[in-house]
Amino acid sequence: MPKLCDEIRKRIIETVAKNGGHLASNLGVVELTLALHRVFESPEDAIIFDVSHQCYTHKLLTGRYKDFSSLRKHGGISGFTRRDESPHDYFDNGHSSTSISQGLGLLAAWDKIEEEQRALGRKPKSRKVVVVIGDGALTGGLAYEALAHAGQLSKNLIIVLNDNQMSISPNNGAISRYLSSLTMTGFYQRFRYFVDGIVDKIPNSKSHIGKFIYRFKRAIKGMFLSNNFFADLGFEYVGPLDGHNIKELEDNLRRVRRLPKPVIVHILTKKGKGYSPAENDPSSFHGVGPFQISDGKMEKFDTLSFTEAFNNTLMALAQKNNKIMAITAAMSKGTGLDTFARHYPDRFYDVGIAEEHAVTFAGGLACGGMIPIVAIYSTFIQRAIDQIIHDVALSNHHVVFMFDRAGAVPQDGETHQGIFDIALLRPVPNMTILSPATALDLSLCLMWAVNAKRPVAIRYPKLSCPSELAPFEGELKEGRGVLLKNSDFAPNLSLDFDESAASEGSSAKKMLLVCTGGIFDESLIAARNLLQKGVNTDIYSLRFIKPFDENYFLSLAKNYDEVAVIEDGVKTGGVGEYIENLLFEHDFKNVKVFAFPEKFFGQGTRAEVLSDAGLSARKIVANLLA
Amino acid sequence: MPKLCDEIRKRIIETVAKNGGHLASNLGVVELTLALHRVFESPEDAIIFDVSHQCYTHKLLTGRYKDFSSLRKHGGISGFTRRDESPHDYFDNGHSSTSISQGLGLLAAWDKIEEEQRALGRKPKSRKVVVVIGDGALTGGLAYEALAHAGQLSKNLIIVLNDNQMSISPNNGAISRYLSSLTMTGFYQRFRYFVDGIVDKIPNSKSHIGKFIYRFKRAIKGMFLSNNFFADLGFEYVGPLDGHNIKELEDNLRRVRRLPKPVIVHILTKKGKGYSPAENDPSSFHGVGPFQISDGKMEKFDTLSFTEAFNNTLMALAQKNNKIMAITAAMSKGTGLDTFARHYPDRFYDVGIAEEHAVTFAGGLACGGMIPIVAIYSTFIQRAIDQIIHDVALSNHHVVFMFDRAGAVPQDGETHQGIFDIALLRPVPNMTILSPATALDLSLCLMWAVNAKRPVAIRYPKLSCPSELAPFEGELKEGRGVLLKNSDFAPNLSLDFDESAASEGSSAKKMLLVCTGGIFDESLIAARNLLQKGVNTDIYSLRFIKPFDENYFLSLAKNYDEVAVIEDGVKTGGVGEYIENLLFEHDFKNVKVFAFPEKFFGQGTRAEVLSDAGLSARKIVANLLA
Repeated sequence: MPKLCDEIRKRIIETVAKNGGHLASNLGVVELTLALHRVFESPEDAIIFDVSHQCYTHKLLTGRYKDFSSLRKHGGISGFTRRDESPHDYFDNGHSSTSISQGLGLLAAWDKIEEEQRALGRKPKSRKVVVVIGDGALTGGLAYEALAHAGQLSKNLIIVLNDNQMSISPNNGAISRYLSSLTMTGFYQRFRYFVDGIVDKIPNSKSHIGKFIYRFKRAIKGMFLSNNFFADLGFEYVGPLDGHNIKELEDNLRRVRRLPKPVIVHILTKKGKGYSPAENDPSSFHGVGPFQISDGKMEKFDTLSFTEAFNNTLMALAQKNNKIMAITAAMSKGTGLDTFARHYPDRFYDVGIAEEHAVTFAGGLACGGMIPIVAIYSTFIQRAIDQIIHDVALSNHHVVFMFDRAGAVPQDGETHQGIFDIALLRPVPNMTILSPATALDLSLCLMWAVNAKRPVAIRYPKLSCPSELAPFEGELKEGRGVLLKNSDFAPNLSLDFDESAASEGSSAKKMLLVCTGGIFDESLIAARNLLQKGVNTDIYSLRFIKPFDENYFLSLAKNYDEVAVIEDGVKTGGVGEYIENLLFEHDFKNVKVFAFPEKFFGQGTRAEVLSDAGLSARKIVANLLA
Repeated sequence: MPKLCDEIRKRIIETVAKNGGHLASNLGVVELTLALHRVFESPEDAIIFDVSHQCYTHKLLTGRYKDFSSLRKHGGISGFTRRDESPHDYFDNGHSSTSISQGLGLLAAWDKIEEEQRALGRKPKSRKVVVVIGDGALTGGLAYEALAHAGQLSKNLIIVLNDNQMSISPNNGAISRYLSSLTMTGFYQRFRYFVDGIVDKIPNSKSHIGKFIYRFKRAIKGMFLSNNFFADLGFEYVGPLDGHNIKELEDNLRRVRRLPKPVIVHILTKKGKGYSPAENDPSSFHGVGPFQISDGKMEKFDTLSFTEAFNNTLMALAQKNNKIMAITAAMSKGTGLDTFARHYPDRFYDVGIAEEHAVTFAGGLACGGMIPIVAIYSTFIQRAIDQIIHDVALSNHHVVFMFDRAGAVPQDGETHQGIFDIALLRPVPNMTILSPATALDLSLCLMWAVNAKRPVAIRYPKLSCPSELAPFEGELKEGRGVLLKNSDFAPNLSLDFDESAASEGSSAKKMLLVCTGGIFDESLIAARNLLQKGVNTDIYSLRFIKPFDENYFLSLAKNYDEVAVIEDGVKTGGVGEYIENLLFEHDFKNVKVFAFPEKFFGQGTRAEVLSDAGLSARKIVANLLA
């Protein structure tokens, strides 16, 4: 067994070092996953991982060892559980805290089926559902709603709590404190059974005296027993167990398998176990790009990323305005807020994996006169739409949202593409949505937003900022984008593809490429290639997605023969459709919209994802020239 | 005091008997609210109600006694706290479980301001934040996320837990069980302080021995103390207190006011207190229409409502197909599922106020082969958008959503209008959205949906179903609506307004009114009046909002001179904009869209809300004839 674990760890480290991925969490659950697969019979039994990025060992053990080198590559093995990959993967899980709800639903369905079979005189095998949930995922409200329901239903759901004392950022919340208090009561579980046994021997009755006896029993138990929260919710609590001791894990899981009620198995693991750079810095090795195995050295963006540009501006603004506060939902590294956190610990809040609370809490801060900046990945803001509508926009609270990882997101696939934010937020009254194209643009947007006195969302991709171009230096005007005449961008830049096919003096057609800031880079390449093909192309970068200065835009558009909108979001309900509609309404017919079609897009590099969606410069140019 | 309480109760009962409103919950908190206002200094201190429909006494005590008879009327006093009504109302709260996040944010902001003032040598008064949250609201995950954060921040937030042992439907969840276990440990709190005191006298140190002593202390406390969950999260726990004993409440609240840490004050109240029909049937008297004070007899829909039509069909389907299960989030009466619950208790789930879990749990049931029907009000589905995207649509799970209270919702105002569901769900891949116009139509839609093998949402208003018309009997075809020629509806019906101005043989213009099902009633009135004015008008009722059979619709539209789309949802991102775009694209220019403009709409009757939005038949006709 230990040898197999070593082999699995080696395979994981080597693969992630090449492909990037979630390292620390996966190294932490090697023994646990092995024990689970020895005790339970997947796929007859279901093992659900939450967040499912800790599924690498599970994948290696269920027929994906050979293909594992394609991890997170275009068309390869996903870094999350995927139903279309294997019957061992029950759910398509990339977001956190879903597993208890899912497992409970699955179990309720199976119980129903088994019940019917028993009614027909058959003897169905009892299928088990095991949920492996991290202590981080347990900070999400959804997990708590599900826990409460599971305790009520009293079905035989087995919840393995993988407690590594941190979620993604170190976890210093009250839940974590609560869990660690539990770890100190280990020896004491046996004592509890002992007292339980004695007290339960006192007979019950429904008379007045009976009620008194019942209360008396509760009081005695209450006095002598540290009834933990899980027990009070109706769960059997087992643990804490050493998550790296396979024998202990197996023995206990076998015992748990036979219990007829919901169980929490509390397991202590070490993030990064077995690879010292990850053990020593599990936050940095949570989700990584390629790195050197020998010393854990990681590749870096060699130029300024949008995330860094945001934080540079934020630091400058925060120094001058002490009402500015920053909030993250367990993503202080990913959003870059760790710098702010170090400088302004009393103005920084990491609320755990709790996007809903992050937003509503920000509404409270704004109500008290502060200017909260909430940095959340685009895909995760889907979790707090009502909080934006009801707790921020309705009262027109001044909250600034920074949607990092907007648009095409490399390697993480369907669950992480940031393509719905525009469509979800455009219908929300009082919302302003900004979409900067460069570092300077982002900086101007953020400076404007902290004075806007209403809700503002600024969205930007996981990407190095494109080189600055002069037009972005202009003053920010509400509702307006940035016009780049081809003289602004053409001379300075070499071409990217098809350099040979020089201008053939085709039609002198004038084209306006309208783009969201997050896909300005591809739009620029497209524009330069169109120029090269003789199409007189300018760019209008949508600094403001909403509000939108229609008159200004219409007066601009009428100078062109054709308008193409390029949007790194879903087409349905997006700004492209809106602009198309606007132009149609004003008898401007020659307009095309390039945006994500209405489907889920799998993993790949950003370029691959954009190409899959028909949004690469090459495909856009081909389409426009067709 | 008791006299004042009687007077308040009388005023509440009389007003709600006339205007409708939330009765049982408000009668339960009269003494509590009075005590809070005596101990705390609103608006210097903030008192936040969650759900804020229990704010009537608060409103009566803060300058709204005189205007209270306008409760829930157009332009009158809101049934929820509203910032624009009074400085005593800190938040615009109609949705549940938001208060702890809001209160914590507000307190963090005030603490910061006070800190700065102290740094300047001033001595600011310490402002307090009190949150009054029901045990029902505590089942929402957001409340839990906030509790955990509040425990961590350790600010002096005062949480008054109004425990009436039921949320809206009787609350039999694990949380409720946990709370009632607490109520039995009352006498024991003092013992706890006693042990705490002794143990805390053992000195701490950071040495190895110190660590041992710390653990030893924890172990002793663990053995002798029933540390409840709130205490473990970092809260002081006070209670349970009798919520109808003003003296006990005041004394304890005064003590709590001085505590320097987060506190939970656990208060037991009786829903409906002081009005026996409500005490005896608090579920029915949760939210009510007008009723007779003498016996509590309520007015009834005299014709079939959409809610009833849904449940009639559901019952018929459930009998034939035992895979059908039903889920509600604490709204078994409101959604009409109480009938299903009585007949099929083992196929019915009330998950508490936990919309996110309701949806993800349904995804789990579907994964296990069941057909879950999730009935949720349109406005509350905003809370589970990511769960629909990530936990249902991504895996294309067969879950049927019933969005009751879609479109204009009478009396409840901004927070309850069901106008965002279409715009929020149209961009979601794999989603189907249906919008029936009559009881039969709804029935056909539901029968289709339970066989659709993919996610389907069916939306319908809080309204009596319009009379059946022959065209709805036709077969349901995917993507297509129902065409009603004017011969189908004109002869049978009398006109509603402006009968005098008979057809003047104006232009023989042919008009197609396209409508979502939820506003078919107004569209019908509009169509008949247009006919009367000589406009040859047919109706196309959008059974399918998505998918949309474009070719069929275009072939239909080309028979008309003008198309008007009438949609009971927000215009931005709605189906009206989509249809307009489609027609423009095919050179059909003469199209108008009537939908909710992008703002929040206050309370009124359905007719008043529609009129405010320009969606009454009268305004539509006037606009089309202008």
